[in-house]
Parts: sequence; structure tokens; C-alpha cells
Amino acid sequence: MKNRKGPLRGGPRFAYDGLNRVIHERARLSLLTSLMTHSKGLTFAELKAFCALTDGNLNRHLQVLEEARLVTVTKNHSGGRTQTRCRISAAGRKRYLEYLAVLEQVIVDGAAGAKQDPRPSMSRGSAPA
Amino acid sequence: MKNRKGPLRGGPRFAYDGLNRVIHERARLSLLTSLMTHSKGLTFAELKAFCALTDGNLNRHLQVLEEARLVTVTKNHSGGRTQTRCRISAAGRKRYLEYLAVLEQVIVDGAAGAKQDPRPSMSRGSAPA
Repeated sequence: MKNRKGPLRGGPRFAYDGLNRVIHERARLSLLTSLMTHSKGLTFAELKAFCALTDGNLNRHLQVLEEARLVTVTKNHSGGRTQTRCRISAAGRKRYLEYLAVLEQVIVDGAAGAKQDPRPSMSRGSAPA
Repeated sequence: MKNRKGPLRGGPRFAYDGLNRVIHERARLSLLTSLMTHSKGLTFAELKAFCALTDGNLNRHLQVLEEARLVTVTKNHSGGRTQTRCRISAAGRKRYLEYLAVLEQVIVDGAAGAKQDPRPSMSRGSAPA
């Protein structure tokens, strides 16, 4: 929807619209990355350990991801215990990879900035525009 | 503070503690990346355009970044107009680069996951643990 004009020094060059808020939140990024690398899924306990989340936070973020259809959560009842197993969905994989591509652009941009001399005094002598 | 135990399948392997919340928020990541790549600083208007932010959002996020001492904001008054100029601070550069290193790890992990076959049926025949 955004009007990406060229003249104004590149338009919203650094807006990173693709950094989907559902995925970008740190705990959820952590959960989705765990699930991306474990294609057979992970239990609630495993996710807690991998992502260093409390029960409450894990439940809350899984609910957000499930509502966005990025993960599936299945509960198995056996021997009086309930095991919760989470997997990233096909749509979740797709959206995660799209997100990752934007993240790569952030790194490319940030790394380009890192190569610049942070001290403006260096170029003052040559009267920049 | 976290107890990084090895045995439980690697401990909080995907917690990404280094994803500093002040920097990770999308608008602020966008602002800091813009400022990283413009070592002489940017005006309020330039930042708005680069990051596609409204006046209100830009003010709010700059305030957070300024309070965290990641950016400096200077106001020049001349000819009845005020020009606001923002620059990333030395501490901001340092923290941003530390953040970027963690982001790179997310990409490495996520990309490794992307190479996995997402279909669990492929390995079911070999009875995984």
C-alpha cells in the first residue's frame, strides 16, 4: 500500500514492513526458530527449555501463534498425563522464511553501516553537502 | 542469570537473550539501522521518510532510544524553525552491533531449519526416538 517514492532519498528504505509483528516478538521468534529446526515438533517441556520461557509466557505466545495459524498444538492424553506437542505449520514455515529474508536485509544494511566511520569530524574537512 | 544446562538438549538454545527489547522493536530497529548507515545523522523528516513512521510514533520511539542513550537528539533553532537532528551514539553503535550478531545467529538457525524436510512422514519408517 505504501508509496515507495524514489526521489526522497529512497523512500521508506528502512521500514522493513516484512518484519511481521506476530513473528518478530522475541519469544515467538525463539519458538518458531526452535520449531523450524525440529520438523517433528517439540513438546511443551522441550520448548520451555529451548526458549527459556515460563509456563505462562509459553502458553500465551503459543496461543498467539496458533491463532495466526503458524503452529499447530496437539494434546495427547495417556496414563493420566497430557502431553502437548507443537509443530510449525506449512503456512508458518512459509511466513517464517519470508520474515527471515527481511531479517537478512536488516543485517546487510546494518553491516554496511558498521563499515562507515562513525566520526563525522573525519569528513568535515572536505566540506560534505 | 540463566542456568545454561547442557544435558536437556542444549538448554535455552533458542532463547536469544541478546535480542535487546529496546532495539528489537521493529520501528526502533528501523530507526537505528537508518542511523547506522548515516553516520552524520538524519533529520526528523528524513527519519520519518526512511522508516515510514508518523510524527507521533517517531517521537515516541526516539524518546525511548534517547532514554536508553542509544541516540542523541539535537534541536537547532534558526529562522523561526526548529530542525531536529538525530545521531546514533557510540554506545548505540556498540549495542546495535551486539544485537546484530544475535540476529545473525537467528538466521543461521532458521536457515538450518529450512533445510530440514518439513514432512515427518519421511522418517516415520525408521522409528525415530
